[in-house]
Formats: sequence, structure tokens, C-alpha cells
Amino acid sequence: MRRQAIVDTSARIFARGGYHATGITELCVANDLGKGALYHYIGSKEELLAAIHDRVMDEVMLGADRVAEAGGSPSHQLAKLGEELLDVIHRYPDHVWVFLHEFPALTGDRAEQFRKRRRQYERRVEAVLQAGVDSGEFRELDPRLTAMAWLGMHNYTYLWLKTGGRLSARDVAKPFADIFMQGISSPISDGHS
Amino acid sequence: MRRQAIVDTSARIFARGGYHATGITELCVANDLGKGALYHYIGSKEELLAAIHDRVMDEVMLGADRVAEAGGSPSHQLAKLGEELLDVIHRYPDHVWVFLHEFPALTGDRAEQFRKRRRQYERRVEAVLQAGVDSGEFRELDPRLTAMAWLGMHNYTYLWLKTGGRLSARDVAKPFADIFMQGISSPISDGHS
Repeated sequence: MRRQAIVDTSARIFARGGYHATGITELCVANDLGKGALYHYIGSKEELLAAIHDRVMDEVMLGADRVAEAGGSPSHQLAKLGEELLDVIHRYPDHVWVFLHEFPALTGDRAEQFRKRRRQYERRVEAVLQAGVDSGEFRELDPRLTAMAWLGMHNYTYLWLKTGGRLSARDVAKPFADIFMQGISSPISDGHS
Repeated sequence: MRRQAIVDTSARIFARGGYHATGITELCVANDLGKGALYHYIGSKEELLAAIHDRVMDEVMLGADRVAEAGGSPSHQLAKLGEELLDVIHRYPDHVWVFLHEFPALTGDRAEQFRKRRRQYERRVEAVLQAGVDSGEFRELDPRLTAMAWLGMHNYTYLWLKTGGRLSARDVAKPFADIFMQGISSPISDGHS
């Protein structure tokens, strides 16, 4: 789809030069389109930014849906959420770079919509954590703070987990899951204070 | 010191508008200085960016030095490193925002210097992890990948750990250390596979 291709190309341009410093002319050149045609497809520069954010959130939520549908224990689901998240970060480095850096440039309804979707995903993670506490698989914990720790550990890989790099998303997901799952496992099974 | 005040003010301006999109004129207004005076203090816009990066690295390395001097077990040192790191993130939100987002704008020797210092800090974390493995306190692990997990968990707090916010750096450091330390503790004591 032409619009999707424009979104993807523009993500690369924003990731390199910064959203604020990138002009419409630059986007026209990169997409090989005149101004009229570009605006026809994207509406405005901010709408383009919103579309990049949506692209990331669409993929992340699809992954979360797959995990929820497959079910299994909270540990299993959390490990799978990690795999899915790292897979998105690995496949969309430019989009994720823009997503994590430029969200303050979204205004009004677009900012609201972005916050809502991000929060929706965070709640998925928190729900899995809470389910693990309820089942006794995880120890007592603050689901919100623990979700932020988990998200930070995974999201921060955008700085070094590269497409075509030495490590695949799975190479990283496994040791990360090992740390995190042992880190929140119930004290009954490990005697940690 | 006047130069330091300029660095701090400019960090706020860059954090809000982006490095590339911020012009010298804007920096002059924010610092209440003419162009000549601004250049006298900072040399160039990129030198100013490097000074912001140095400010963060100086604080982070000072913290790491304090931890190394105080000594103690690897677990204790890792917990203290976390406290120190979160304290910097909490106290310098604008500098850290610029640090994490705008480093690709550093060129030549400045980029090299930045990479070197960041790597130096990462090695401190890796060394503490390796010491814990050697002493049997931590299980067998990949020090590099584990350090990146630890850094991500802590650094990512820059998005939500706010000066004057509900949570202090210590409020976050403790539960994070609990997750991480239990997560890499030796299997001898917990029977985790």
C-alpha cells in the first residue's frame, strides 16, 4: 500500500534527522512525491508521526493478542510477551526509535490516543503479573512498578538490538525472561527473602 | 559557574524542542546572552551537546566510584549502583533525555569520547556481575547481556521517574534491585532451573 510505504520511509527519515528538524520538502524527496501528493496520502506531518506510532502499537498489540489467545501459565505468557515485543523492536528499528523519542510532539486527540494505546499494552503486562501473583507463581509485587521494570528491560534494547545484527530477538528474549521470571518467582520455591 | 548554567539551561531547551531543530538564536534568548557571548562560553552547538553528555557521565561515574570505594558484596554493589543511577536520572531529567536521544548528533572525537565513557560505565556493571559469578553469589550468566538488561530496566525510568513526582529514586531502586538480584542469584540457594 502506498500510504504504508510512505509511513515506513518517513520513519527512517525522522529517526535520522529528528521529527522537528525534518521538513515536508525532505519527506517529499525521500518518498519521491510532490507536496500535493504527499499531503493527499498523509494529511499532515503530525498525522504521519501518529501513523508511525500506530504502526508500532498495532504490531505490539497483535503480539499481545496472540499471547492472550494461546494462554498458558503467567510465566509462559510473560516470556511470550517478551519475545513478541523484542521481535517488533528488532523488525522496526526506525519506527521504534521515532516512537520512543518523538511522542511528545503528538498533540490533542493524537496524543490522547497514543497514551491510551500505550497504557492498554501496559495493562496487559500488569494483568499477567497480577495473574501470577494470584496463582502463587509470582511473589507479592507492585504490578505497575514491576511492569515498568519489565518494559524498560525490553524496550531499551532498541539501542543495540539491530536487524541483521549478531543477536536475534529470541537470543535476547530467553536470558531476559530467565532473569525476570526468577526475579519475581514465588519465595516458596526459592527461599529468597 | 556561568558555563555550567548555560549547559543546564540549554539541556532544557534541547529536551523540549530537539537538538537539530533548536537554533543558536533560541539558545541565546534562553540564556539571555548575545551570540558572541554564547560562543565564548560554549564554542559551538555540538560542543554544548557534548557538555550535556559529559554532565550526565560525570555524575554517573562519580556514583560508580563511590560504590567501588565503599566495596561490599557484588549484590550490595549492584544495588548501590542502581540507587546512584536512578538518582542521576531523577535529578537531571532534561540532561538525561538529551543524553539518551541526541547522542547520534555527536561527531568525530566527541562521538568517540562519548562511546568510550559510556562503555566504561557499562564495564563497571559487567565487572560487578562477573565478581558475583566468581564468588558464587550470582549464577552463570552473560555479563554483557545481563548488564544491558540491568541498564535498560534502570535507564528507561527517565520516561516516568520525575523530579517532584510521587516516587523517589529510592522508592524505585529497592523493588528493582529485589527483582534483579533474585533474578540472577545462584541456583544453589533457590533451585531455579
